[in-house]
Amino acid sequence: MGTTQRMARFIAEAKFEDIPAPAVNLAKLCLLDAVGCALYGTTRPLGKIITGVVEELGGKPVSRVLGTRIETNAVNAAMANGTLGHSEDFDDFAAGHQAVLLMPVVLALGEEQRASGKQALLSYIVGFDITTNVTHAMGEDHYGKGWHNTSSIGTLGSTAAAAKMLGLDEMQTRMAIGIGASQAAGLRGNFGTMTKPFHPGNACRAAVMAAKMAEKGYEASPDIMEHRFGYAAVYGEQMMSLANCTRHLGHPWALMGSGREVANGIRIKIWPCCGGTHGANTAITHLLKKHPVKAEEVERVDIVTTQEPSCMAPNLRWPKSGLQGKFSSWFTVASIIVDGGKLDLSSFTDEAAARPAVQDMLKRVSIVQDPEHAGRPHRARGGSHWLDLTVTLKNGERLVAARIEANNARGDTYGWETKEAVFDKFKLLAGAVLKPSQVDAALNAIMDLDKAKDVRAVVDSVIPPR
Amino acid sequence: MGTTQRMARFIAEAKFEDIPAPAVNLAKLCLLDAVGCALYGTTRPLGKIITGVVEELGGKPVSRVLGTRIETNAVNAAMANGTLGHSEDFDDFAAGHQAVLLMPVVLALGEEQRASGKQALLSYIVGFDITTNVTHAMGEDHYGKGWHNTSSIGTLGSTAAAAKMLGLDEMQTRMAIGIGASQAAGLRGNFGTMTKPFHPGNACRAAVMAAKMAEKGYEASPDIMEHRFGYAAVYGEQMMSLANCTRHLGHPWALMGSGREVANGIRIKIWPCCGGTHGANTAITHLLKKHPVKAEEVERVDIVTTQEPSCMAPNLRWPKSGLQGKFSSWFTVASIIVDGGKLDLSSFTDEAAARPAVQDMLKRVSIVQDPEHAGRPHRARGGSHWLDLTVTLKNGERLVAARIEANNARGDTYGWETKEAVFDKFKLLAGAVLKPSQVDAALNAIMDLDKAKDVRAVVDSVIPPR
Repeated sequence: MGTTQRMARFIAEAKFEDIPAPAVNLAKLCLLDAVGCALYGTTRPLGKIITGVVEELGGKPVSRVLGTRIETNAVNAAMANGTLGHSEDFDDFAAGHQAVLLMPVVLALGEEQRASGKQALLSYIVGFDITTNVTHAMGEDHYGKGWHNTSSIGTLGSTAAAAKMLGLDEMQTRMAIGIGASQAAGLRGNFGTMTKPFHPGNACRAAVMAAKMAEKGYEASPDIMEHRFGYAAVYGEQMMSLANCTRHLGHPWALMGSGREVANGIRIKIWPCCGGTHGANTAITHLLKKHPVKAEEVERVDIVTTQEPSCMAPNLRWPKSGLQGKFSSWFTVASIIVDGGKLDLSSFTDEAAARPAVQDMLKRVSIVQDPEHAGRPHRARGGSHWLDLTVTLKNGERLVAARIEANNARGDTYGWETKEAVFDKFKLLAGAVLKPSQVDAALNAIMDLDKAKDVRAVVDSVIPPR
Repeated sequence: MGTTQRMARFIAEAKFEDIPAPAVNLAKLCLLDAVGCALYGTTRPLGKIITGVVEELGGKPVSRVLGTRIETNAVNAAMANGTLGHSEDFDDFAAGHQAVLLMPVVLALGEEQRASGKQALLSYIVGFDITTNVTHAMGEDHYGKGWHNTSSIGTLGSTAAAAKMLGLDEMQTRMAIGIGASQAAGLRGNFGTMTKPFHPGNACRAAVMAAKMAEKGYEASPDIMEHRFGYAAVYGEQMMSLANCTRHLGHPWALMGSGREVANGIRIKIWPCCGGTHGANTAITHLLKKHPVKAEEVERVDIVTTQEPSCMAPNLRWPKSGLQGKFSSWFTVASIIVDGGKLDLSSFTDEAAARPAVQDMLKRVSIVQDPEHAGRPHRARGGSHWLDLTVTLKNGERLVAARIEANNARGDTYGWETKEAVFDKFKLLAGAVLKPSQVDAALNAIMDLDKAKDVRAVVDSVIPPR
C-alpha cells in the first residue's frame, strides 16, 4: 500500500472513539485560541480587505465569516477565516501554524453540513496528525529554500480535515489529497506582508474545494504523494521520507505531543509575532526581569545563535511597519527593551514601529550565527540549538542572559499554555469585537463543542448582533 | 529596478496602440480556439463536475461559465472556464498552455468590469508576454522535477492579465504578482487525470483573486520574483535567470514568436492530446500516408528519441482510460495505427481506449531514449532534438519514418494553424453545445472582439438559449 493510500485510509477510518479525551480537550483549546485570533483579525486592515473581497464575491449563504455578518459559501468562509486567524501571527504553532489550517475548515464545512461538534473535533485532530507527520517527514531544505510550510505542507492537513468533514471514503480521500496537493503553495518571501496570513486562508480554500470536488467524483492521481512527479518529488527537495509520512499516524496522536521534534506539543503564543522570534524574546525578557535596565542605558545587544538570522526571522533587518516587525528578532528585542519587558499587540502598530526609540534600538541589536554552525543555512533538525544574548550597557557593564536551549529557538514558551491563560487571551482578542457577556458565552460554546449537535451553535456565538 | 518592478511597469504601462495588428489578430484566433475547447468541455464528465461545484458555491452573478446558464462571480467563472478549456488538452500551447490561462481571466473580468474588447485583448497579450518570458527564464529543472509549468509559471501570466483588466497601477501590480506567486502550483503527477485541467482553472482563480485583493490595498512583497525566499528561489531550482524574465518583454511581443525556443509561435492543436505526443504522432501519421499498412500487419513500432520517454509524455505506459491516453505517446501511436491515421476526440473515450486492438498495439510500441542523451532526464533546452520512428511488419519489412526534428518534439504542427482550419475546429467543438447558427454568430463575435464595446457581447454569443 502506498503513502497516499495509507494517509487516506487513516483519515477515512478514524473514529471519535479512537481519540483520547485529553486530545479532544486540547483541540477545543486550540480552536478557541484560533477563533479569538480570527475575531481580532476582523479589526485589522488586512482583515477588512479580505472580508471586503469575500463580501463582493458573494456565494450561497451557508457558512459565516467569524466576527462579521457575512454569510457565504464554505470555500470563501474557510478562506476568510484562515486569513483572519493568522493576521497577527498570534495563533498557535506546532509543525507550522495548525489551528488556522483546521479551525476554518471544520467550522465552515461544519456549518454547511450541520455537522456535530464531535465530527468537527475528530476532523480537526485527524488534520493535525496529517500536517504534523508530513512536516516531520519533509526534510529541512523545504523551509530553508523559501516555502512557507504552514501552507505548502498544511494544505494536506486542511484537505484531510475537509475530507473527514464530508465523510469521504478512502478512494475519494485519495482524490482529495491529489487535488489538494496540486494547490499547495506559499512563499516565505511574503513574510512580513499581508500575504503571509493569506497563505493558511488559501490552504483552507484549496482544501474545501478539493474535498467538494472529490465528493462529486473529480479524479486525481490516487498516489500523488509518492508519484514520480508528485508531492514528495516536487516539494520534498530529495530529503522527504515517505515512510515517515505515515509511520506514526495516530500512534501517538500528534496533537498530544509525541516526543518528536516537530510534534513537541503545541505552542499557544504569548507574543503576537513569528515563532522564530520567541527564543530571543524569551532571553531578553528574562534578562530584564533580573536586571531592569532602561533603554537609554543600553549600548548594544548581541545575539549569537546556532541558526542563521534570516531563519530565526525572515531577514527583516530594518522593519518599517508593525507587520514587518512581527518577523524580525531585531525588532522584537528592541521593542521589549524600549517598553521595559512588554511585547503585545500594541507593539506592532505602524506607529509603535516608527517610534524613534525603537528605530534607534534596532541599530544596537546584532544577531550573528555561531561560526561553527555556519553553512547550515536554515534551521537544521536534530542536535543542539541554542541562543545566547548579551546586553552591553553604556557604562561598560555586560549582562548575559541564560542560554536559551530550544528546538527552533522557541524558548521557554513550553508549558505556558494553562487553560486559564488561554481563556484570558481569548477574552482580550474576542473583546475587540464582542461584548463581554457574548465573549463568555462564546468561550463556553467552544469549550462545549464536543457536546454540540450542530457546529452552527458555535459560530452563532461569535457573530456580533446587528 | 528589480525584476518584479520591471514586470509590473511593463504590465501597467502597456497600451493597445503598442500592439502590432498581427498580434491582435492572432490573440483573437487563440481566444476563439480556447472558447471552443471550453464549450466542448461542458459536455465532458470533468466539466459537469466543475460546473456543478461552481453552481453549488454560488456567487454574485456578474460573470458567466461559457456554454452554460451559470452566472457567478469572476473568480469562480475564471476557475470554471480555465478548467473547461483544458479538459481535452486540445487548447493551444506555447511556453505552456497559454490560452486557457488568459481567455478565462479576460472574459470573466471583462464581463464584470464591462471592459472593452481592446482592453481584453491588450490584457491577453500582456499576460502572454509575461508567461512566455518567465518560462524562457525558468530553466529546465522546473518541469523536469514535476511542476506543471502551465500553472506553476502561468499563474504569473494570468495575474498579469487580471491586473491589466483591473487597470492596476505599477505598485498594485507588484502586489498582485506577489499574491499570485504565493498561489502558484500544479503537479505533473496529476497528468492523465481530471486534475490536470483544473491546474489552469486554479491559476485563473488565483490571478483574479490576486488582482482583486491588490486593487483593494492588500499587500505582498513588492519584490517577490527576486526575493531571497521568493519565486525564483523556490520555483527556479537555481537555474532561473531573473534578467531573462524581463529582457524581452514586449520586444518583440512574444505572441508573434520571437525566434527563441519557448516563444516559437503558438501551436493550435490538431490532436486533442498532450503536446509531448505530437512528435510521435507526426512521424507515424506521415509514415502511414506513404505506407498505408494495416494494424494486423504490424509486428512492432520502435521510437528512439533524444528525450526520456516519461518527458515526451508523463510515463503512462499502460493507459486504461481515454484521459490517460492523452498523455501517452505509446497510446497515441497505437491508436493512429489501429484507426488508419486518425486521431481525434473519438480516440480518447474510455471505450476507444479499452479496445483490444489498441491495447494489443500498445504492447508493440517501444520508446527508448537515445543512449547518447541518457542522463538528461527531461527535455533539455538548446541543441538538436529529434525522434526516429520505425515500423517493423510481420513480414519482416522495416518502414522508417522521416526523422522529426523539433524543439520539444512538436513535429510539423508548425504552420498548421490556418485561420480557416481553426474556424473549422471551433465549429466542431462549439457545435457540441450550440446550434449551427449560434456557432457562426459566436465565431464572428469573437473575431470582432477588438471592435466590441463590452466583452459581455462575446460571452452572450456562447451562452445556449434556455
